[in-house]
Amino acid sequence: MTKDNVQGAGEEEQQAQSKKALKKQQKEAEKAAKKAEKQAKLAAEQQEADEDDFAKDRYGICPMVQSQQKLDRALVRVQDLTPEKAEQQIWVRARIHTSRAKGKQCFLVLRHQQFTVQALLAVGDRASKQMVKFAANLTKESIIDVEAVVKKVEQKIESCSQQDVELHVERIFVISQSEARLPLQLEDAVRPEGEGDEEGRATVNQDTRLDNRVIDLRTTTSQAIFRLQSGVCQLFRDTLINKGFVEIQTPKIISVFRAEDSNTHRHLTEFVGLDIEMAFNYHYHEVIDSITDTMVQIFKGLRDRFQTEIQMVNKQYPSEPFKFLEPTLRLEYKEAVAMLKAAGVEMGDEEDLSTPNEKLLGRLVKDKYDTDFYVLDKYPLAVRPFYTMPDPNNPKYSNSYDMFMRGEEILSGAQRVHDAQLLTERAMHHGIDLEKIKAYIDSFRYGAPPHAGGGIGLERVTMLYLGLHNVRQTSMFPRDPKRLTP
Amino acid sequence: MTKDNVQGAGEEEQQAQSKKALKKQQKEAEKAAKKAEKQAKLAAEQQEADEDDFAKDRYGICPMVQSQQKLDRALVRVQDLTPEKAEQQIWVRARIHTSRAKGKQCFLVLRHQQFTVQALLAVGDRASKQMVKFAANLTKESIIDVEAVVKKVEQKIESCSQQDVELHVERIFVISQSEARLPLQLEDAVRPEGEGDEEGRATVNQDTRLDNRVIDLRTTTSQAIFRLQSGVCQLFRDTLINKGFVEIQTPKIISVFRAEDSNTHRHLTEFVGLDIEMAFNYHYHEVIDSITDTMVQIFKGLRDRFQTEIQMVNKQYPSEPFKFLEPTLRLEYKEAVAMLKAAGVEMGDEEDLSTPNEKLLGRLVKDKYDTDFYVLDKYPLAVRPFYTMPDPNNPKYSNSYDMFMRGEEILSGAQRVHDAQLLTERAMHHGIDLEKIKAYIDSFRYGAPPHAGGGIGLERVTMLYLGLHNVRQTSMFPRDPKRLTP
Repeated sequence: MTKDNVQGAGEEEQQAQSKKALKKQQKEAEKAAKKAEKQAKLAAEQQEADEDDFAKDRYGICPMVQSQQKLDRALVRVQDLTPEKAEQQIWVRARIHTSRAKGKQCFLVLRHQQFTVQALLAVGDRASKQMVKFAANLTKESIIDVEAVVKKVEQKIESCSQQDVELHVERIFVISQSEARLPLQLEDAVRPEGEGDEEGRATVNQDTRLDNRVIDLRTTTSQAIFRLQSGVCQLFRDTLINKGFVEIQTPKIISVFRAEDSNTHRHLTEFVGLDIEMAFNYHYHEVIDSITDTMVQIFKGLRDRFQTEIQMVNKQYPSEPFKFLEPTLRLEYKEAVAMLKAAGVEMGDEEDLSTPNEKLLGRLVKDKYDTDFYVLDKYPLAVRPFYTMPDPNNPKYSNSYDMFMRGEEILSGAQRVHDAQLLTERAMHHGIDLEKIKAYIDSFRYGAPPHAGGGIGLERVTMLYLGLHNVRQTSMFPRDPKRLTP
Repeated sequence: MTKDNVQGAGEEEQQAQSKKALKKQQKEAEKAAKKAEKQAKLAAEQQEADEDDFAKDRYGICPMVQSQQKLDRALVRVQDLTPEKAEQQIWVRARIHTSRAKGKQCFLVLRHQQFTVQALLAVGDRASKQMVKFAANLTKESIIDVEAVVKKVEQKIESCSQQDVELHVERIFVISQSEARLPLQLEDAVRPEGEGDEEGRATVNQDTRLDNRVIDLRTTTSQAIFRLQSGVCQLFRDTLINKGFVEIQTPKIISVFRAEDSNTHRHLTEFVGLDIEMAFNYHYHEVIDSITDTMVQIFKGLRDRFQTEIQMVNKQYPSEPFKFLEPTLRLEYKEAVAMLKAAGVEMGDEEDLSTPNEKLLGRLVKDKYDTDFYVLDKYPLAVRPFYTMPDPNNPKYSNSYDMFMRGEEILSGAQRVHDAQLLTERAMHHGIDLEKIKAYIDSFRYGAPPHAGGGIGLERVTMLYLGLHNVRQTSMFPRDPKRLTP
């Protein structure tokens, strides 16, 4: 693409565009033109240099991969670079994680996903002075293909995931160039908060992270978080499918939305809900038992299969291992209120738990029962939605429950009213327009089994299992009242 | 709940409610009152009858299951009622599927999920005249608990899924009553369309089905459809997790939505997308191969694990078994146009496929290659979105593809432009406001691997695998321009 092409396209569209957009486009075009100029200059320099460069065919910038050809060349993954591959000549595709030139040598750390390996270029038989200079000038985060010989190292390379080998590079080609100025540095983005202060080094604040989420997602911490979250989904579904559940997809476009306060560390405008609904025979505790067993299977699966990811996150955000009991601890709301009152909290018996009280309760429960996971059962009827089944023995309470991880709610659930008449009565009591929920009420008119369920907040489970402190860390592209992009 | 209670609650809320809502509420209250009156009358009648009824404790209407008690009583599932259980005394919870009184006997067909069993009450030692009458008067779709002895039968019961046994009922209690007038009959809802016409019997039209989806979902056909759909999701994810993919959750709240014509048999306002994105090394066909292999794993899994469900759906909607090749057939767009032209279609080389031509092509491909699944590769650049990678060898074409099942598109995909500069140029060419897609373009500025992907329409895969003809059958609660409920 040349400068002329870009301007030509601009003219065609000019009439349909606002002035502002046009300005932007001109700016883009100028930027593109500058880039093209710079590349032309580089090319000219290189041509000049090429004339006396024996290695000129061993490095360079590839044309954009546009599927021009089907190359029969195997690429080895960084994670597979182990001593078993020593002395082998291989090709690797990876990002430049860090780069350091030192005399006639250039050290690169290459990264793919959460794995890193050291690579070395040295002026000699296989690399010219120009080639080493070329490598040293490559921008961080660029993606390159290198041909190299795998070499065992005598001293472990502590800064890389692949500690026993390094790559001696013989060819190096750029697949995708990164802009030179990164909006954040990956090494800053994984630095534990305290450590940065002490050593006068930078850490990255949350808005910068989220504004540049595409880069932030490349850190070992982010890679570990989202791999573990994928594991939560998988464990949740596998456990339930084994129990005979069927996965269903419900509509998201509905006429009534529930608005929540999203300006907190644990609320998002949009979150992923893993929901369970289950018919039971006699008592909704059958459903509580199914849900808690599912959660326990998730905790065990994470502990047994995702220990590497847990350790990676702990490096930046240290936390105690997640503790849980079998069977799961179940407390009644009344008992919780009594525990809080005994700890000096003033609150009414039928008052909802404030966030600080919820957290305090979590600490009291942890001290007394040594668990990070428990169920709080039998909430006051007044603080639950209209479709919650009242307690048959005490009209002030209800057959409803929340589940907590590290003192924060991750699931809210209840026995649902399955009788159209009682449901109508409860909706009227709550001042709800019956016309708006007609389809919902009518669905119970033709025989409905007693049932209960609950909704699990996926981002919260990931956050709290890992002992993180903001749900935006466990949402890939979080949405809140102030953020609709990227 | 009494009539007084309902009106009392009405008064409290009166001020906050519109007149219309109040009218509705009064209607509801009157309805509830009538129901209460009727129940009182029934109770009086029963009390009278009880006086000379030796079986009076063996039947009745249970109070609403409000988790009053934890009963230590095992319930046997209908699907587990086999000859091995013969002569055992058991409890079963199920719906009344059909009911037929005959002299001193009452035959019920009991249903749980997609399974049915015959149950018999006969006046004698274990059941009184009143008890049989009570059973005969129960409304269809009500949920009941029965205690019964399992009996082997000499002649197979063709009308039930459990053909070798029947239940001799000794106790019968109602758990949840259905209203007497059902908006649709389940036996009508599973009748093959032609058959209804021939025998002068009713079938159920689609709007009635969808207006009463809660009942329509109880048919064996619906049960089979959604169990198979759950299987599609499971097979899709298991296959990809095994290939090393990570499941991610993307935001649904974004600033730009793409509107599609939803007034067709295969478009919904809301659908479930199973999306894949994958970095590749040299050629986007690496991604096509991964996706087609995933589809083949899904087809095989459905064929091997969901044969019962496929047969159930075929009973109502007969179709040929789904055929596929290994490796998957891949045609170029040019070839498809040539096939269509040879079949008499007039169309331009760079024209998009119309729906009739798409279907015709499906038939031509089936005739020639004997497959219901194939890939159409190298679409004209002009008919694809701006982020599609142009073909490096011919600027009129692109590195993009659709996949088809039984002649209808189920996936659209492409190599994506991974270069910010080319992406900007392409967006400008399409007259797109760059400001609105800034975050998207910027995400490619810091090194991006060549990648391709595609979005699979879950409802379409289910519909076309089963040879169904409307995507609303495979969406649990479909949304289109005319439907926002239930």
